[in-house]
Amino acid sequence: MLNNMNVVIIGGDARQLEVIDTLSERGVQLSLIGFDQIEEPFAGVENHTFSSIHPADVDAVILPVSGIAADGKVESRFSSEYVYFDEHWFMNTKPSCTLYSGIKTNQIEKLIQKSEKRFVELLGRDDVAIYNSVPTAEGTVMTAIQHTDKTIHNSHVCIFGLGRVGTTVTRLFQGMGAKVTVVAQESERLARGYEMGANIVPLSSLQEENLEDIDIVINTIPSPVVTAETISKLSSHALIIDLAANPGGTDFDYAKKAGIKAKFVPGLPGIVAPKTAGKIIATTLAKLLREQHE
Amino acid sequence: MLNNMNVVIIGGDARQLEVIDTLSERGVQLSLIGFDQIEEPFAGVENHTFSSIHPADVDAVILPVSGIAADGKVESRFSSEYVYFDEHWFMNTKPSCTLYSGIKTNQIEKLIQKSEKRFVELLGRDDVAIYNSVPTAEGTVMTAIQHTDKTIHNSHVCIFGLGRVGTTVTRLFQGMGAKVTVVAQESERLARGYEMGANIVPLSSLQEENLEDIDIVINTIPSPVVTAETISKLSSHALIIDLAANPGGTDFDYAKKAGIKAKFVPGLPGIVAPKTAGKIIATTLAKLLREQHE
Amino acid sequence: MLNNMNVVIIGGDARQLEVIDTLSERGVQLSLIGFDQIEEPFAGVENHTFSSIHPADVDAVILPVSGIAADGKVESRFSSEYVYFDEHWFMNTKPSCTLYSGIKTNQIEKLIQKSEKRFVELLGRDDVAIYNSVPTAEGTVMTAIQHTDKTIHNSHVCIFGLGRVGTTVTRLFQGMGAKVTVVAQESERLARGYEMGANIVPLSSLQEENLEDIDIVINTIPSPVVTAETISKLSSHALIIDLAANPGGTDFDYAKKAGIKAKFVPGLPGIVAPKTAGKIIATTLAKLLREQHE
Amino acid sequence: MLNNMNVVIIGGDARQLEVIDTLSERGVQLSLIGFDQIEEPFAGVENHTFSSIHPADVDAVILPVSGIAADGKVESRFSSEYVYFDEHWFMNTKPSCTLYSGIKTNQIEKLIQKSEKRFVELLGRDDVAIYNSVPTAEGTVMTAIQHTDKTIHNSHVCIFGLGRVGTTVTRLFQGMGAKVTVVAQESERLARGYEMGANIVPLSSLQEENLEDIDIVINTIPSPVVTAETISKLSSHALIIDLAANPGGTDFDYAKKAGIKAKFVPGLPGIVAPKTAGKIIATTLAKLLREQHE
Ligand SMILES: NC(=O)c1ccc[n+]([C@@H]2O[C@H](COP(=O)([O-])OP(=O)(O)OC[C@H]3O[C@@H](n4cnc5c(N)ncnc54)[C@H](OP(=O)(O)O)[C@@H]3O)[C@@H](O)[C@H]2O)c1
Ligand SMILES: NC(=O)c1ccc[n+]([C@@H]2O[C@H](COP(=O)([O-])OP(=O)(O)OC[C@H]3O[C@@H](n4cnc5c(N)ncnc54)[C@H](OP(=O)(O)O)[C@@H]3O)[C@@H](O)[C@H]2O)c1
Ligand SMILES: NC(=O)c1ccc[n+]([C@@H]2O[C@H](COP(=O)([O-])OP(=O)(O)OC[C@H]3O[C@@H](n4cnc5c(N)ncnc54)[C@H](OP(=O)(O)O)[C@@H]3O)[C@@H](O)[C@H]2O)c1
Ligand SMILES: NC(=O)c1ccc[n+]([C@@H]2O[C@H](COP(=O)([O-])OP(=O)(O)OC[C@H]3O[C@@H](n4cnc5c(N)ncnc54)[C@H](OP(=O)(O)O)[C@@H]3O)[C@@H](O)[C@H]2O)c1
Repeated sequence: MLNNMNVVIIGGDARQLEVIDTLSERGVQLSLIGFDQIEEPFAGVENHTFSSIHPADVDAVILPVSGIAADGKVESRFSSEYVYFDEHWFMNTKPSCTLYSGIKTNQIEKLIQKSEKRFVELLGRDDVAIYNSVPTAEGTVMTAIQHTDKTIHNSHVCIFGLGRVGTTVTRLFQGMGAKVTVVAQESERLARGYEMGANIVPLSSLQEENLEDIDIVINTIPSPVVTAETISKLSSHALIIDLAANPGGTDFDYAKKAGIKAKFVPGLPGIVAPKTAGKIIATTLAKLLREQHE
Repeated sequence: MLNNMNVVIIGGDARQLEVIDTLSERGVQLSLIGFDQIEEPFAGVENHTFSSIHPADVDAVILPVSGIAADGKVESRFSSEYVYFDEHWFMNTKPSCTLYSGIKTNQIEKLIQKSEKRFVELLGRDDVAIYNSVPTAEGTVMTAIQHTDKTIHNSHVCIFGLGRVGTTVTRLFQGMGAKVTVVAQESERLARGYEMGANIVPLSSLQEENLEDIDIVINTIPSPVVTAETISKLSSHALIIDLAANPGGTDFDYAKKAGIKAKFVPGLPGIVAPKTAGKIIATTLAKLLREQHE
Repeated sequence: MLNNMNVVIIGGDARQLEVIDTLSERGVQLSLIGFDQIEEPFAGVENHTFSSIHPADVDAVILPVSGIAADGKVESRFSSEYVYFDEHWFMNTKPSCTLYSGIKTNQIEKLIQKSEKRFVELLGRDDVAIYNSVPTAEGTVMTAIQHTDKTIHNSHVCIFGLGRVGTTVTRLFQGMGAKVTVVAQESERLARGYEMGANIVPLSSLQEENLEDIDIVINTIPSPVVTAETISKLSSHALIIDLAANPGGTDFDYAKKAGIKAKFVPGLPGIVAPKTAGKIIATTLAKLLREQHE
Repeated sequence: MLNNMNVVIIGGDARQLEVIDTLSERGVQLSLIGFDQIEEPFAGVENHTFSSIHPADVDAVILPVSGIAADGKVESRFSSEYVYFDEHWFMNTKPSCTLYSGIKTNQIEKLIQKSEKRFVELLGRDDVAIYNSVPTAEGTVMTAIQHTDKTIHNSHVCIFGLGRVGTTVTRLFQGMGAKVTVVAQESERLARGYEMGANIVPLSSLQEENLEDIDIVINTIPSPVVTAETISKLSSHALIIDLAANPGGTDFDYAKKAGIKAKFVPGLPGIVAPKTAGKIIATTLAKLLREQHE
């Protein structure tokens, strides 16, 4: 139990409700900022503003997955007003106070340098990235079903990258009966792709491949790898789904010109499975707070 | 090649375009009724009305998946006017002329008795039902993703029936990482469910099961098997997806009262994968016309 | 509980020990014939000879999987002497007495006609055949590993028949990463093979196929389907594993002449997984005795 | 093509035949030492002794998977006499000459230091280790089938480690229908195990687990992790298969005392699938020689 920890949760979407639920179950003393519109209030968890929380008692501050925007705004779906991060307040939290956020925005970067507080980028953790790859892959399936008129079963799917997301996407599409080709750079990634039963192509020899039969291209490499040359070899019915971080790895302009459907689909976990995505963050936070506590 | 066969296609949706495409490729002489709005006309395939086709030359008549309605109407998505089946015209087709339709409606039943023509109910064929089970299962996945906030991976899915559709749905959900329980009547269905790695429950002992952990119920049995008693044991977040033929096998009224989401989702193949669904019908028709031809 | 049922078990191998175990647990009154060498005697279960059992009390007689040989001998691995079935004794059992055996030998056929007793051929039941297909398939895997110098993963496996055994063998080899081609006769079998992700070939068009890449042929069709013509098209390193009932479906003479390894491997469940195989029979017998009891 | 490369192959088993085959196909000039008993000589490849090869021409020396023993002996299955590595000869090879071996023995270590030649430990490469994990996993399956009397399907398998071998073993046993529990240390390994559908247990909390239902323990961690405490919690029918490098990670003495079957099974790829294992080495060598060539 984490009874004597004081934790402030600032803003967020449906995923943060799972965090509140999980942490309050484990006995954490929670104060919420930006949840005034919340439908079902949690027993024993109070709504606050920065001014109603004494910073010197605070052990941890939890931000939404999206962190703090350049103007200091913190996304907060369940608040009637905009929520802005109070930097001054944060400077006065306990020296050991840790800041948790999904991603590390520039604003957070600066804040950490100034405050010298500990910071944890949750989505950067390998375990979280792997757990999150599951809803990401299911979101990719949904996108594929919605934007094609053929089944995934027996379709030819070409997946770029076999990292944390690519591995899961590969397994899922294979589990659904697709014929998967993995395109990757490192020889051990290709070896794993082979072991998983995929057809494998080194990124460096992609230009020699015939891509006419490919129904769906799925990109997970955050680098410009789905080039105009590659796109020009796809058939007109092909669909490109780009999962890689903004701006993706696809030459979208070329795709548009060539008349190939290309979808950039960020943030899938929060969209297709907010409960699961929230649970992943909640469980990780519970573990990290326990470690911080010890 | 089926060069000297005269076939009339009357109405239909996107699936029928695959049929036209496939049959004209194999050399069939096609006449279309109800396709005047079609975007891309097929080379060498002409639009007609009943009066412009000489019935005595006709070897086969192909209706849409939905057959003929009680008032004689034939579904025709690509026609600017309603299309009504001309019974008189049909009576005058060759004695060997065969009528093909997805399902056998009452109207078709009567027509067949009167005309003494051969009739083939395409969706009633085992092979077609199995091929169609693939897009049906993917449509079920789409429904599940859209109506739950958790991943299918690691969810508990209870599937009623292990026939042509149930077997495919079971494999697909397992391939996506769900924990599947199969509920069926016959001991050999249960044995197959076990071999497939599912948890198995005889329909007759369902009432002894704890169903609280079930996230999704999928019914494929065209009989009232998802009863009020069963529904009352589900948790409030459970989702019921009923695939069985109209009116399904779920006590929808009870589900509504109990606040359990229950979706009746007919016609999935034509919705989620019209091209695949059309291809299935087209390939089967080509095979049957060849057999008729020989 | 089956407390007041008197059941006589005559001979058998390790599988019958599971039967004894299971039935005695459910309270059946068991008498054993042909188990005098048994290592660990079962509590409360006694060894007998025909003469020490009063036939008029007997509700059921359980034979080994192999039934009764032409000379009346009953296989009995745990007996120091040959055991011969006492027909006269059997004629005097209760009129309702049922005879259970794995297969129906000629000797049993005659016995049943003469005695007019009820008979159940356990291995002929669909559920038992499906449960047994699992150890059969694993035995096929063991045979393949032992007789090839390549991995099953990424090998090309051609499976004849998609019945109860063929379906399980297909799934298992696919689960191990093999590329499977299913050869079958009926269109619905081929449809199921397609849905399972296999390459499919109608038996009637097998002669048009190139079989040079095939590493392993597995036959489950009890008919001469793996013909000289087919074998002549295999590469010299190919392995044929024939599972079909004696004499299999392979032209073994031709294979020998052609220098292609061909293995006829009957009775795999009892060899590779006697405990599982015994459990299957035991569970089925318990169920059937309960039904007989009611 | 690698036409002007001079490569000497010294000793080895069936796997080396694949290497000879592959490299001579690519045009490498091969000289063999220790292959005098070879059944089918390779076209254009000659048998030699060290003295018949001019070292100053040699671009690469290929040793068997097992390297060089402490006494200088080189394993050579196809030689009528023992083969000893001629260090002096090797010192006189081209400065750019590279030594290839499966593992790096002490003797090789010393040789490399003395000669200052480039050395590649083939089995240490990530890609080779992953490709090799496939025959290793199939060898594990064979071991499991041979030493248990139950099917792998539906058995409870506990796998220690989710590295290159553990991942493949997990997938294979799951593909065969086993219920897999993964025990690992790092949180990202556990996350991947979860994504793969396994039950997961952190190594640090293994002592809290009930292990009574486990049928098979498979260890891939080269550290003493299958401790007496763990073994004491297994049921008497459990089987331990230890794959980790000599001396494995199992307390074999304790297992023996406790009456639990424990098998240490090194070198599986060369045993169960020498052709595949040879192909893996051959393909990698061809790639490395090409890189060396450029
Ligand atoms: N759309 C969504 O909802 C969603 C959800 C989660 C993640 N993502 C995004 O998906 C992407 C992949 O995430 P991840 O967790 O899978 O990352 P990851 O584990 O780092 O995998 C990235 C893969 O890309 C390869 N790669 C990176 N740079 C490359 C380059 N320049 N050339 C060739 N290959 C390169 C890596 O190869 P090596 O293995 O050889 O390094 C690896 O296989 C990220 O951009 C992430 O932000 C999107
Ligand atoms: N929603 C869609 O898009 C869609 C698409 C295709 C099909 N469907 C519908 O899905 C349903 C299933 O199709 P299918 O091709 O799988 O049919 P099927 O092969 O006949 O399978 C039906 C299953 O239900 C069982 N069953 C039938 N009546 C039963 C009863 N009274 N009690 C217990 N079990 C019973 C059967 O058991 P036995 O095996 O023991 O007979 C079998 O397992 C049909 O109603 C079909 O119209 C819907
Ligand atoms: N070696 C072992 O350890 C072992 C263990 C168990 C069983 N078996 C044997 O394995 C065989 C298969 O058993 P099973 O339970 O799978 O039987 P099954 O369910 O009846 O399947 C047999 C398959 O063969 C097809 N078939 C039958 N006769 C045919 C013919 N003349 N031409 C073309 N196809 C034909 C059937 O096609 P349709 O579906 O169209 O009828 C079906 O697909 C049997 O002989 C059985 O005794 C051996
Ligand atoms: N029997 C055979 O035929 C055969 C064939 C091939 C390989 N092998 C042997 O199998 C073993 C595994 O090979 P591999 O390629 O899978 O190696 P690997 O990729 O390095 O994986 C080893 C696994 O063990 C874990 N590990 C290592 N030391 C540990 C410790 N002290 N405590 C807890 N976990 C520890 C690693 O965890 P982290 O991931 O956290 O580091 C990793 O998950 C090796 O010993 C190899 O020699 C045997």
